[in-house]
Amino acid sequence: MSETIRLTVTGMTCGGCEQAVTRALHTLPGVERVAASHRDNEVTVTFDPARVAVPAIRDKVGLLGYTVAP
Amino acid sequence: MSETIRLTVTGMTCGGCEQAVTRALHTLPGVERVAASHRDNEVTVTFDPARVAVPAIRDKVGLLGYTVAP
Repeated sequence: MSETIRLTVTGMTCGGCEQAVTRALHTLPGVERVAASHRDNEVTVTFDPARVAVPAIRDKVGLLGYTVAP
Repeated sequence: MSETIRLTVTGMTCGGCEQAVTRALHTLPGVERVAASHRDNEVTVTFDPARVAVPAIRDKVGLLGYTVAP
């Protein structure tokens, strides 16, 4: 079973930022698909909730210095 | 004792990229100072070699999808 969340993320200003967020999230076990858009301030993540939890996903994005809306 | 390395890093295209690299490197224990410049394709890292090794620093940047020159 997979779940998908859509996070509002500010601070990404180019394709390189999108790439950084995408790659970083893929280092988490259980993350299956990531789509990041700096134009929409949006990161969509499909994951296996048995392997990774939403706070870990949010924290990973925040660790890069981008801001995840509550 | 601290050491400083200067890495040539391509793929950073804005200040957000610099920030992502800087924040990610600061999550490594032993990393003391980071300066990233997308204009110069350069990341300068001051670190305690007793606590973190250069390959770990290089890997961390690579994990974000940026390319570190050999």
